[in-house]
Amino acid sequence: MAKYPASLERLIYELQFLPTVGPKSASRLAFYLLGASDERVRALTQAMLDVKARLTSCSRCGNLAEGGLCEICRDPRRNAKLLCVVATARDLMAMEGAGEYKGLYHVLGGLISPLDGIGPDQLNIDSLLARLQQEPIEEVILSTNPTVSGEATALYINNIIKDKGLTVTRLASGLPIGADLEYTDPMTISRAFSNRRPI
Amino acid sequence: MAKYPASLERLIYELQFLPTVGPKSASRLAFYLLGASDERVRALTQAMLDVKARLTSCSRCGNLAEGGLCEICRDPRRNAKLLCVVATARDLMAMEGAGEYKGLYHVLGGLISPLDGIGPDQLNIDSLLARLQQEPIEEVILSTNPTVSGEATALYINNIIKDKGLTVTRLASGLPIGADLEYTDPMTISRAFSNRRPI
Repeated sequence: MAKYPASLERLIYELQFLPTVGPKSASRLAFYLLGASDERVRALTQAMLDVKARLTSCSRCGNLAEGGLCEICRDPRRNAKLLCVVATARDLMAMEGAGEYKGLYHVLGGLISPLDGIGPDQLNIDSLLARLQQEPIEEVILSTNPTVSGEATALYINNIIKDKGLTVTRLASGLPIGADLEYTDPMTISRAFSNRRPI
Repeated sequence: MAKYPASLERLIYELQFLPTVGPKSASRLAFYLLGASDERVRALTQAMLDVKARLTSCSRCGNLAEGGLCEICRDPRRNAKLLCVVATARDLMAMEGAGEYKGLYHVLGGLISPLDGIGPDQLNIDSLLARLQQEPIEEVILSTNPTVSGEATALYINNIIKDKGLTVTRLASGLPIGADLEYTDPMTISRAFSNRRPI
């Protein structure tokens, strides 16, 4: 098979480390970059390096931050009595995107998953317990995914904190808005049925 | 809508200039980069900058090169009597990938396309004519795509060079290997019919 010049082959190779990028996409991306202006490519590479250099974890909640506290922890309007526990910063953003929740967060940095070698010690649970002691938190909303790992993690944390006199809740499970019963999986229907509520 | 820290938002913005990358893919790529090792990200950014800094056009045929002549023009085993005229370096690579052709190339840098403001003057046609005078070329294979622009460009070049005593050919049009007549477009079937050949 014919080869491109070395620097182009190298770029195509490096691009294939990106998720969902195979040889064909990598080649298309490489040719795009080859044709793009120098400014455009410099802006992209600089943005990549800046993210690596600047992004840190919030020293309080573990959310993404650029040094010190994250934007949410720095916001005095957030309700410090509510603490929403999520697995990742992306889950946090999904909660924020819904616009409903106005309390604080705690980012675990993952879920308990023995098969992946992730136990409670790898998660930010010690810092969660410390916050429950130091901060005026009244309700903990365990917002891990309704999956095996998410349920196990919520159960584990609930076992530790259930005797601390806090309200501990979990996001409701049921039919997503706009769902079609016909195409909904049996587990979700079972859960929606057992959690049914009066109109 | 909630926002990520500024450097992450910036990266997601810059990634969206890449082809086929929308907001969701950009976000996924950004989080991949955030989690990747510093070495990995540096290798990627360096590869991007290197391609911009090093890649040039071959001074003879217009193929991609890293300064001076491309690999094909530097290869003394190529048959200098054959010249394959293609629109782009990617088309050249497709020809090379087939492994059939052992002559030299000339890369036009595009196709005549009045709607996109590309006329013959924007293509490497002057350098093609110069090569036909200086080099021992006997056959010119006009390998532009069998599309409106490709046919127009081949016709245009043929009009200029047809009186120079060269053999001028075009890649055969017809059914692609593995094709199914039922699903082949009428234009291709017409062409395959008029170009039918004895077994």
